[in-house]
Amino acid sequence: MTDTATPDKTLLIASNRVDEMTVRSRDGEKMGHVHSYMVNKRTGTVTHAVLSLGGFLGLNKSYYPLPFELLSYNAVDDLYIVTVDRRLLEGGPSWSNNAPDFNQAYADRVASYYDTRHEAIQPGD
Amino acid sequence: MTDTATPDKTLLIASNRVDEMTVRSRDGEKMGHVHSYMVNKRTGTVTHAVLSLGGFLGLNKSYYPLPFELLSYNAVDDLYIVTVDRRLLEGGPSWSNNAPDFNQAYADRVASYYDTRHEAIQPGD
Repeated sequence: MTDTATPDKTLLIASNRVDEMTVRSRDGEKMGHVHSYMVNKRTGTVTHAVLSLGGFLGLNKSYYPLPFELLSYNAVDDLYIVTVDRRLLEGGPSWSNNAPDFNQAYADRVASYYDTRHEAIQPGD
Repeated sequence: MTDTATPDKTLLIASNRVDEMTVRSRDGEKMGHVHSYMVNKRTGTVTHAVLSLGGFLGLNKSYYPLPFELLSYNAVDDLYIVTVDRRLLEGGPSWSNNAPDFNQAYADRVASYYDTRHEAIQPGD
Protein backbone atom coordinates (compact mmCIF):
# COMPACT_ATOMS: atom_id res chain seq x y z
CA MET A 1 0.00 0.00 0.00
CA THR A 2 2.46 2.59 -1.21
CA ASP A 3 1.55 6.09 -2.18
CA THR A 4 4.91 6.92 -3.64
CA ALA A 5 4.57 8.52 -7.02
CA THR A 6 6.48 6.75 -9.77
CA PRO A 7 6.13 9.22 -12.60
CA ASP A 8 9.12 7.96 -14.53
CA LYS A 9 8.21 4.33 -14.34
CA THR A 10 7.54 3.00 -17.79
CA LEU A 11 4.24 1.54 -18.76
CA LEU A 12 5.65 -1.76 -19.94
CA ILE A 13 5.61 -4.88 -17.83
CA ALA A 14 6.96 -8.32 -18.70
CA SER A 15 4.16 -10.87 -18.81
CA ASN A 16 5.99 -13.09 -16.33
CA ARG A 17 5.99 -10.29 -13.79
CA VAL A 18 2.37 -9.18 -13.87
CA ASP A 19 1.84 -10.60 -10.39
CA GLU A 20 3.67 -7.52 -9.13
CA MET A 21 0.60 -5.47 -9.99
CA THR A 22 -1.55 -4.61 -6.99
CA VAL A 23 -5.32 -4.39 -7.39
CA ARG A 24 -7.45 -2.04 -5.34
CA SER A 25 -11.17 -1.51 -5.04
CA ARG A 26 -12.79 1.78 -6.02
CA ASP A 27 -12.68 2.68 -2.32
CA GLY A 28 -8.92 2.33 -2.27
CA GLU A 29 -8.84 -0.93 -0.37
CA LYS A 30 -6.22 -3.42 -1.39
CA MET A 31 -7.95 -6.47 -2.82
CA GLY A 32 -5.10 -8.60 -4.12
CA HIS A 33 -2.98 -8.67 -7.21
CA VAL A 34 -2.94 -9.69 -10.84
CA HIS A 35 -2.28 -13.39 -11.30
CA SER A 36 -2.06 -13.32 -15.09
CA TYR A 37 -3.39 -11.65 -18.19
CA MET A 38 -5.34 -13.56 -20.81
CA VAL A 39 -3.88 -12.49 -24.15
CA ASN A 40 -5.17 -12.93 -27.67
CA LYS A 41 -2.21 -14.56 -29.38
CA ARG A 42 -3.00 -13.13 -32.78
CA THR A 43 -3.76 -9.52 -31.95
CA GLY A 44 -1.64 -9.16 -28.84
CA THR A 45 -4.56 -7.73 -26.92
CA VAL A 46 -5.12 -8.40 -23.25
CA THR A 47 -8.75 -9.50 -22.98
CA HIS A 48 -8.91 -10.34 -19.28
CA ALA A 49 -6.90 -9.94 -16.12
CA VAL A 50 -7.12 -12.88 -13.79
CA LEU A 51 -7.07 -11.44 -10.29
CA SER A 52 -5.75 -13.30 -7.28
CA LEU A 53 -7.80 -12.34 -4.27
CA GLY A 54 -8.11 -13.36 -0.67
CA GLY A 55 -6.21 -16.06 1.04
CA PHE A 56 -3.84 -15.83 3.95
CA LEU A 57 -0.14 -16.50 3.55
CA GLY A 58 -0.92 -17.74 0.09
CA LEU A 59 -3.54 -20.24 1.23
CA ASN A 60 -7.07 -20.40 -0.09
CA LYS A 61 -6.53 -17.94 -2.85
CA SER A 62 -9.19 -17.59 -5.49
CA TYR A 63 -8.85 -16.41 -9.05
CA TYR A 64 -11.28 -14.05 -10.71
CA PRO A 65 -11.16 -13.39 -14.44
CA LEU A 66 -12.20 -9.82 -15.13
CA PRO A 67 -12.61 -8.25 -18.59
CA PHE A 68 -9.58 -5.99 -18.91
CA GLU A 69 -11.73 -2.99 -19.77
CA LEU A 70 -13.12 -3.10 -16.21
CA LEU A 71 -9.70 -2.35 -14.75
CA SER A 72 -8.37 1.17 -14.62
CA TYR A 73 -4.63 1.72 -14.51
CA ASN A 74 -3.45 4.24 -11.95
CA ALA A 75 -0.07 5.51 -13.13
CA VAL A 76 0.72 7.46 -9.98
CA ASP A 77 0.62 4.41 -7.74
CA ASP A 78 1.32 1.94 -10.57
CA LEU A 79 -1.63 -0.29 -9.75
CA TYR A 80 -5.04 -1.27 -11.02
CA ILE A 81 -8.40 -0.18 -9.72
CA VAL A 82 -11.41 -2.44 -10.22
CA THR A 83 -14.10 -0.18 -11.67
CA VAL A 84 -16.99 -2.44 -10.72
CA ASP A 85 -18.37 -2.98 -7.26
CA ARG A 86 -16.31 -5.34 -5.18
CA ARG A 87 -19.32 -7.51 -4.42
CA LEU A 88 -20.10 -7.88 -8.10
CA LEU A 89 -16.57 -9.17 -8.62
CA GLU A 90 -16.72 -11.49 -5.63
CA GLY A 91 -19.96 -13.02 -6.89
CA GLY A 92 -18.57 -13.55 -10.36
CA PRO A 93 -16.90 -16.44 -12.16
CA SER A 94 -13.89 -17.70 -10.22
CA TRP A 95 -11.95 -20.80 -9.32
CA SER A 96 -9.62 -21.95 -6.57
CA ASN A 97 -7.73 -25.04 -7.58
CA ASN A 98 -8.73 -26.13 -11.03
CA ALA A 99 -8.35 -23.40 -13.62
CA PRO A 100 -11.01 -23.71 -16.30
CA ASP A 101 -10.18 -24.13 -19.94
CA PHE A 102 -10.41 -20.49 -21.01
CA ASN A 103 -12.27 -21.24 -24.22
CA GLN A 104 -15.06 -19.44 -26.02
CA ALA A 105 -17.74 -20.83 -23.72
CA TYR A 106 -15.90 -19.62 -20.63
CA ALA A 107 -15.16 -16.21 -22.15
CA ASP A 108 -18.84 -15.94 -23.04
CA ARG A 109 -19.79 -16.74 -19.48
CA VAL A 110 -17.51 -14.01 -18.13
CA ALA A 111 -18.77 -11.52 -20.72
CA SER A 112 -22.35 -12.40 -19.90
CA TYR A 113 -21.83 -11.98 -16.16
CA TYR A 114 -20.21 -8.57 -16.54
CA ASP A 115 -22.40 -7.60 -19.47
CA THR A 116 -19.35 -6.70 -21.53
CA ARG A 117 -18.92 -6.88 -25.24
CA HIS A 118 -18.88 -10.36 -26.63
CA GLU A 119 -15.79 -11.05 -28.63
CA ALA A 120 -15.11 -14.16 -30.65
CA ILE A 121 -11.81 -15.67 -29.67
CA GLN A 122 -11.75 -18.68 -31.94
CA PRO A 123 -9.01 -18.58 -34.56
CA GLY A 124 -11.29 -18.40 -37.58
CA ASP A 125 -9.34 -17.51 -40.65
CA MET B 1 7.90 -29.36 -34.45
CA THR B 2 4.33 -30.54 -34.63
CA ASP B 3 2.19 -30.14 -37.68
CA THR B 4 -1.00 -31.18 -35.99
CA ALA B 5 -3.77 -28.79 -36.84
CA THR B 6 -5.50 -27.33 -33.80
CA PRO B 7 -8.42 -25.55 -35.41
CA ASP B 8 -10.54 -25.50 -32.28
CA LYS B 9 -7.85 -24.22 -29.98
CA THR B 10 -8.85 -20.87 -28.63
CA LEU B 11 -6.82 -17.80 -29.28
CA LEU B 12 -6.34 -16.92 -25.63
CA ILE B 13 -3.24 -17.75 -23.69
CA ALA B 14 -2.47 -17.04 -20.05
CA SER B 15 0.47 -14.67 -19.73
CA ASN B 16 2.28 -17.11 -17.43
CA ARG B 17 2.16 -19.78 -20.13
CA VAL B 18 3.42 -17.85 -23.15
CA ASP B 19 6.63 -19.88 -23.09
CA GLU B 20 4.59 -22.68 -24.65
CA MET B 21 4.54 -20.73 -27.90
CA THR B 22 7.01 -21.98 -30.48
CA VAL B 23 8.69 -19.52 -32.83
CA ARG B 24 9.72 -20.42 -36.34
CA SER B 25 11.62 -18.61 -39.04
CA ARG B 26 9.97 -17.72 -42.35
CA ASP B 27 11.62 -20.85 -43.76
CA GLY B 28 9.81 -23.04 -41.26
CA GLU B 29 12.81 -23.72 -39.08
CA LYS B 30 12.22 -23.86 -35.36
CA MET B 31 14.08 -20.98 -33.74
CA GLY B 32 13.00 -21.13 -30.12
CA HIS B 33 10.02 -19.99 -28.14
CA VAL B 34 8.43 -16.96 -26.59
CA HIS B 35 9.95 -16.08 -23.26
CA SER B 36 7.53 -13.29 -22.38
CA TYR B 37 5.42 -10.53 -23.80
CA MET B 38 6.01 -6.89 -22.95
CA VAL B 39 2.61 -5.43 -22.18
CA ASN B 40 1.44 -1.86 -21.90
CA LYS B 41 -0.22 -1.88 -18.49
CA ARG B 42 -2.68 0.87 -19.36
CA THR B 43 -3.89 -0.22 -22.76
CA GLY B 44 -3.37 -3.95 -22.42
CA THR B 45 -1.48 -4.08 -25.69
CA VAL B 46 1.42 -6.41 -26.28
CA THR B 47 4.19 -4.21 -27.66
CA HIS B 48 6.99 -6.78 -27.89
CA ALA B 49 7.55 -10.49 -27.67
CA VAL B 50 10.81 -11.45 -26.01
CA LEU B 51 12.04 -14.54 -27.84
CA SER B 52 14.20 -17.16 -26.22
CA LEU B 53 16.57 -18.52 -28.84
CA GLY B 54 19.47 -20.89 -29.00
CA GLY B 55 21.12 -22.63 -26.15
CA PHE B 56 21.42 -26.31 -25.48
CA LEU B 57 19.53 -27.99 -22.65
CA GLY B 58 18.59 -24.57 -21.44
CA LEU B 59 22.17 -23.31 -21.30
CA ASN B 60 23.40 -20.18 -23.03
CA LYS B 61 20.01 -18.96 -24.03
CA SER B 62 19.67 -15.49 -25.36
CA TYR B 63 16.66 -13.22 -25.30
CA TYR B 64 15.59 -11.09 -28.25
CA PRO B 65 12.91 -8.44 -27.91
CA LEU B 66 10.96 -8.17 -31.14
CA PRO B 67 8.20 -5.65 -31.88
CA PHE B 68 5.04 -7.75 -31.73
CA GLU B 69 3.94 -6.57 -35.15
CA LEU B 70 6.89 -8.46 -36.66
CA LEU B 71 5.47 -11.78 -35.48
CA SER B 72 2.76 -13.53 -37.45
CA TYR B 73 0.46 -15.92 -35.64
CA ASN B 74 -0.13 -19.22 -37.42
CA ALA B 75 -3.42 -20.61 -36.12
CA VAL B 76 -3.11 -23.99 -37.81
CA ASP B 77 0.08 -24.90 -35.97
CA ASP B 78 -0.54 -22.52 -33.07
CA LEU B 79 2.87 -20.88 -33.28
CA TYR B 80 4.54 -17.66 -34.30
CA ILE B 81 6.53 -16.96 -37.43
CA VAL B 82 9.17 -14.26 -37.38
CA THR B 83 8.45 -12.13 -40.43
CA VAL B 84 11.91 -10.59 -40.63
CA ASP B 85 15.04 -12.32 -41.77
CA ARG B 86 16.56 -14.55 -39.15
CA ARG B 87 19.93 -12.82 -39.45
CA LEU B 88 18.34 -9.45 -38.84
CA LEU B 89 16.87 -10.80 -35.63
CA GLU B 90 20.10 -12.44 -34.54
CA GLY B 91 22.00 -9.21 -35.04
CA GLY B 92 19.47 -7.21 -33.07
CA PRO B 93 19.18 -6.09 -29.47
CA SER B 94 19.46 -9.04 -27.09
CA TRP B 95 20.74 -10.12 -23.73
CA SER B 96 21.80 -13.33 -22.03
CA ASN B 97 21.96 -12.89 -18.30
CA ASN B 98 21.08 -9.38 -17.34
CA ALA B 99 17.73 -8.29 -18.68
CA PRO B 100 17.76 -4.58 -19.45
CA ASP B 101 15.36 -2.14 -17.88
CA PHE B 102 12.72 -2.07 -20.60
CA ASN B 103 12.25 1.66 -20.46
CA GLN B 104 11.65 4.25 -23.13
CA ALA B 105 15.29 4.39 -24.16
CA TYR B 106 15.43 0.64 -24.64
CA ALA B 107 12.12 0.53 -26.51
CA ASP B 108 13.44 3.31 -28.73
CA ARG B 109 16.56 1.33 -29.42
CA VAL B 110 14.52 -1.73 -30.46
CA ALA B 111 12.19 0.39 -32.61
CA SER B 112 15.15 2.07 -34.22
CA TYR B 113 16.87 -1.22 -35.01
CA TYR B 114 13.76 -2.72 -36.60
CA ASP B 115 12.64 0.60 -38.06
CA THR B 116 9.21 0.20 -36.50
CA ARG B 117 6.87 2.86 -35.32
CA HIS B 118 8.10 4.74 -32.29
CA GLU B 119 5.60 4.64 -29.48
CA ALA B 120 5.87 6.61 -26.27
CA ILE B 121 5.50 4.27 -23.31
CA GLN B 122 5.88 6.73 -20.49
CA PRO B 123 2.78 7.13 -18.36
CA GLY B 124 2.12 10.75 -19.31
CA ASP B 125 -0.88 12.06 -17.43
